[in-house]
Amino acid sequence: MTSKIGLKCYGIKKGRTGVGIALMEGQVFAVYTRNRIKAAPILFNMRNLGERVRGIIVNSGNANAFTGEEGIRNAERMARFLAEKLNCSISEIAVASTGIIGRQLDIQEIERIAEDVFENLGKDQKCIDAFARAVMTTDRFPKIARREFDGAEILGIAKGAGMISPDMATMLAFIFTNAGVENMEEVFREAVDMSFNRLIVDGDTSTNDTVFMIASGDVEVDREKFRKELTSLMVELAEMIAGDGEGSTKVFRVYVSGAKNDRDAELIARAVARSSLVKTAIYGEDPNFGRIVCAAGYSGADVDEMITIEIKSRKGEVKIIDRGRVLEHAMETGKDVMSEKFIEIHIRLEKGNGRYYVIGCDLTHDYVELNSRYTT
Amino acid sequence: MTSKIGLKCYGIKKGRTGVGIALMEGQVFAVYTRNRIKAAPILFNMRNLGERVRGIIVNSGNANAFTGEEGIRNAERMARFLAEKLNCSISEIAVASTGIIGRQLDIQEIERIAEDVFENLGKDQKCIDAFARAVMTTDRFPKIARREFDGAEILGIAKGAGMISPDMATMLAFIFTNAGVENMEEVFREAVDMSFNRLIVDGDTSTNDTVFMIASGDVEVDREKFRKELTSLMVELAEMIAGDGEGSTKVFRVYVSGAKNDRDAELIARAVARSSLVKTAIYGEDPNFGRIVCAAGYSGADVDEMITIEIKSRKGEVKIIDRGRVLEHAMETGKDVMSEKFIEIHIRLEKGNGRYYVIGCDLTHDYVELNSRYTT
Repeated sequence: MTSKIGLKCYGIKKGRTGVGIALMEGQVFAVYTRNRIKAAPILFNMRNLGERVRGIIVNSGNANAFTGEEGIRNAERMARFLAEKLNCSISEIAVASTGIIGRQLDIQEIERIAEDVFENLGKDQKCIDAFARAVMTTDRFPKIARREFDGAEILGIAKGAGMISPDMATMLAFIFTNAGVENMEEVFREAVDMSFNRLIVDGDTSTNDTVFMIASGDVEVDREKFRKELTSLMVELAEMIAGDGEGSTKVFRVYVSGAKNDRDAELIARAVARSSLVKTAIYGEDPNFGRIVCAAGYSGADVDEMITIEIKSRKGEVKIIDRGRVLEHAMETGKDVMSEKFIEIHIRLEKGNGRYYVIGCDLTHDYVELNSRYTT
Repeated sequence: MTSKIGLKCYGIKKGRTGVGIALMEGQVFAVYTRNRIKAAPILFNMRNLGERVRGIIVNSGNANAFTGEEGIRNAERMARFLAEKLNCSISEIAVASTGIIGRQLDIQEIERIAEDVFENLGKDQKCIDAFARAVMTTDRFPKIARREFDGAEILGIAKGAGMISPDMATMLAFIFTNAGVENMEEVFREAVDMSFNRLIVDGDTSTNDTVFMIASGDVEVDREKFRKELTSLMVELAEMIAGDGEGSTKVFRVYVSGAKNDRDAELIARAVARSSLVKTAIYGEDPNFGRIVCAAGYSGADVDEMITIEIKSRKGEVKIIDRGRVLEHAMETGKDVMSEKFIEIHIRLEKGNGRYYVIGCDLTHDYVELNSRYTT
């Protein structure tokens, strides 16, 4: 399937080092990690990137983070490589990296691979797959999503597993669209807030997280429609990442309603989704309301015992606490409902109209296995 | 060994239900969980407990938390049981519970066991051990510490493993002393702040955490000396709890210095000790400075790349980052230093004079195993 967007891309992984290149002309939008220690490519983009770009170059295997001035020079060298090929300014090239922290890039190896990648750039699905695979690190599968409507198209490619947290984490996402709407920046930022920023894998926020969007603006579309499609595409990618959270076996959403305000609802949703005890209970398919209530209690939000908790999945739904009353008989059904891969936990308070939701994944034996072995 | 304090105690565990009773007359001091959902015994103590007590009654196996008014009546019934035996007011009895959340106590079973416990109260080490064992839940070993100086004595008994976090968590500690100093309350609170409040097992704060101290005031001692001894006893107990953190194999301290201020140092220390990625790296004996730097970066504190990190243990000490420069050659030594059970991570910034430390433990396969199986 060929994209209408005019995107050309490709990627190659050679041992631990991957390189992906994506070419498309358009306005560029970016959201970066809020970590105070920002990787070199992010610092480089923040200083150098213009409003319009011609392409993106990405490497995997080395995050080029905590690498000082030499790291920034290497990020610039990656940008220059592509700028020279395209005969454009380095301000028209975006750079991203993902992988190990604290080592200098093997920039010659990256350039060697990039030469091969550049030779093979193409527009078909095979090329998109190659790009998606080249940027993977501990990912178990490539993440691609697509939307088409009213002659417009949005294509999203993401990378990420583990280290994903409230404010995004070693997560890279690349969105390409031929759509144009007024004040695209606002729509982009809202969509990121409704999706990637609600993803909680292990509470760690990486030094490298980045969401890029390139929009050519060729096809004028309805703004509201575009907002919906873009948000749903980003949520789809975010849930793919949660489903690929290191060692994860289940993806869940925590919905909080009836909190004093939205901020309180957010505090509760994040505390529950981040709790190691809740995450292991979900792995064990255990409707452990005690751990949920406990996390709500220490979240910092205004909480009392008037809590209602329901668990939902494709297998059905079950209320396990009704306004503070524990429904013991519901526990067996609860276990059954939790035996699915996608689970929703609904927490209702009686404090007001605040609501929020987040996306999380379980904490498993394999998470510990992977993270006690990976690197140095 | 008989205690000078005049403490009489005992405990019995029958199946999942344990009961411990400790009798001692004196001033009582208490610090309770900051979780908004407080267990019934805590609510009961907050309303009822006077300045002086005659004894403490504790049950394990059921937290009596999230149990509404019936829960508070049951906590009161536990207090009344002991008050009737001692022919005193229920305001002179402190109550504590630990175990599963959301179920009513089997109060008759507790009273039956309590009768047996009361019959067997004694002053010797065997009785202290019995009390310490009766209050255990997922603990792998009883936790007892003692200090003697200038004719005074401090005896501490703690219970806790897992669910221990910044603001304390299913952690119960009972301190008994015959010492008397001016403004004992202040010394007590400071010691708790320097020990139990710096313990981070999995970031969850329980509904039941309590530290009680009963002080008879029989022996006047030097206030500074008492402060030191009490703090060191509480730190010893806190480290025993960390060493017994669910499935933990290693105990570590994170020391931060050179932060902009103490608050920033605290943010960094807590973020590092709480990070699942750092905790699994410590389990894997991997000097993974990248995860430490990353956690410091998202802690919210003012941080840049001018960081120095050293790792210490009984096997020696090794610098792995020197003012932002990664010392690759140090990694092998780093692994060796980390192969000990007690590890120190020293993080130095160049921002000011802020310092703080916390106590943590690693995240292991057994943590996941225990917490995905335990309950419902």
